[in-house]
Amino acid sequence: MRGRAVSLNFAPMRSPIRILGIDPGLRRTGWGLIESDGNRLVYVACGSVETSERVALGVRLVALHDGLTEVIASFAPQEAAVESTFVNVNGASTLKLGQARGIAMLVPARHGLEIAEYAPNLVKKTIVGAGHADKTQIRVMIGMLLPKADPQSEDAADALAIAICHAHHRRSAALLRAVAR
Amino acid sequence: MRGRAVSLNFAPMRSPIRILGIDPGLRRTGWGLIESDGNRLVYVACGSVETSERVALGVRLVALHDGLTEVIASFAPQEAAVESTFVNVNGASTLKLGQARGIAMLVPARHGLEIAEYAPNLVKKTIVGAGHADKTQIRVMIGMLLPKADPQSEDAADALAIAICHAHHRRSAALLRAVAR
Repeated sequence: MRGRAVSLNFAPMRSPIRILGIDPGLRRTGWGLIESDGNRLVYVACGSVETSERVALGVRLVALHDGLTEVIASFAPQEAAVESTFVNVNGASTLKLGQARGIAMLVPARHGLEIAEYAPNLVKKTIVGAGHADKTQIRVMIGMLLPKADPQSEDAADALAIAICHAHHRRSAALLRAVAR
Repeated sequence: MRGRAVSLNFAPMRSPIRILGIDPGLRRTGWGLIESDGNRLVYVACGSVETSERVALGVRLVALHDGLTEVIASFAPQEAAVESTFVNVNGASTLKLGQARGIAMLVPARHGLEIAEYAPNLVKKTIVGAGHADKTQIRVMIGMLLPKADPQSEDAADALAIAICHAHHRRSAALLRAVAR
C-alpha cells in the first residue's frame, strides 16, 4: 500500500473551535470570543474588564482575574490567544502591563486552555495584510470578517483581532500538518 | 475631662501578627513568614516556588499561583509585603518580572490580605541601616534578627528581609498613630 489519502477531516478542523482572544492591560483588558469552523468565523461575544486606578494594585488584579474567570465560565472557550505585549521604553509601564498580562495568561492556563501568543504586528498583518495597519483599518476588517460584532471599545476590538489571528494561524498549521502526513 | 491616657495596648500591637514577605520572580519566587509581636520577631518558615523554563508561560504562572496559594493555606498570614520590582533597563526582563509579580500580588489579595510594597533600597536600609548593603550583610542581619531561620536560597532570604521590613514599618506607623491620638 504505497501512498495514502490525505484526509482533510482531521480532528482540529472537524468541529467548530471556540477561541478567546485577550488584549491585556491593567486599566482595561479586552476580550473577544469567536468560533472557527473550517474557513468560517462566527462572532460570539466581546467586552472588556475595567479596573479602577483608585484601588490597590492587588485589588485591581483580583478584579481582572475574576472578570476573565467569569468570561471563561460563561463562554467555555477551548483555546486562548494573547497579544505578546509591546515592550515599552518606559519601564514602569512595561511592569504594569506585565502584571496584567500575568493574570491574562494565568486564568486560561488554570482552566486548562492552550495559550498562543502573537506579536501585535503579526495580528495586524493577519487581519489587514500589513503590519503597520492603523486602528480604523483593523475595525473595518473586523466588521467584514465578523459582521455581527459591535465592539464597544478598542480593547475589545483588539481582542477579537487576536482571536481571528489565532483562528487563521491554527488553521494554517493544521493544513500543513495534514499535507505532511 | 482634659487630656487622656495614651494607650499602648491598641489593636494593631495587641497580638502577634503573621507576615508573609514575597520576593517575586518568574524562575523563582521567594517567600518568608515571620510573626511580629510588639518588638519581638519570630521566624515561622521560608522557601521558594520554582518554575521550569521548559514549560509554557501560562503553566509557569499557574505553578507560581498554586505554590503561593499553598503557602497561604498552610501558614495563614494576616498581612503581606512584596518588594517593588526594580525596573530593569531590559524591557523583556521587566515584562517577565511583571508577570510573576502580578501573580505574587494576586494570590494574597484574593485571600483578603493587605499588601504593602517596599522598594529594594528601603528593605536594605531597614535591615542593615544602609540602602546599598550587599547580600552578605543582609544574610548576617537576618541571622541575628531571626536566629532560627536558615533560608536555603537568596530569594527566600530576601523574602524574609521584606517581611522584617514590613514588621518594622507597620510598628512605626502604629506608634505614630498612637502618639497622634
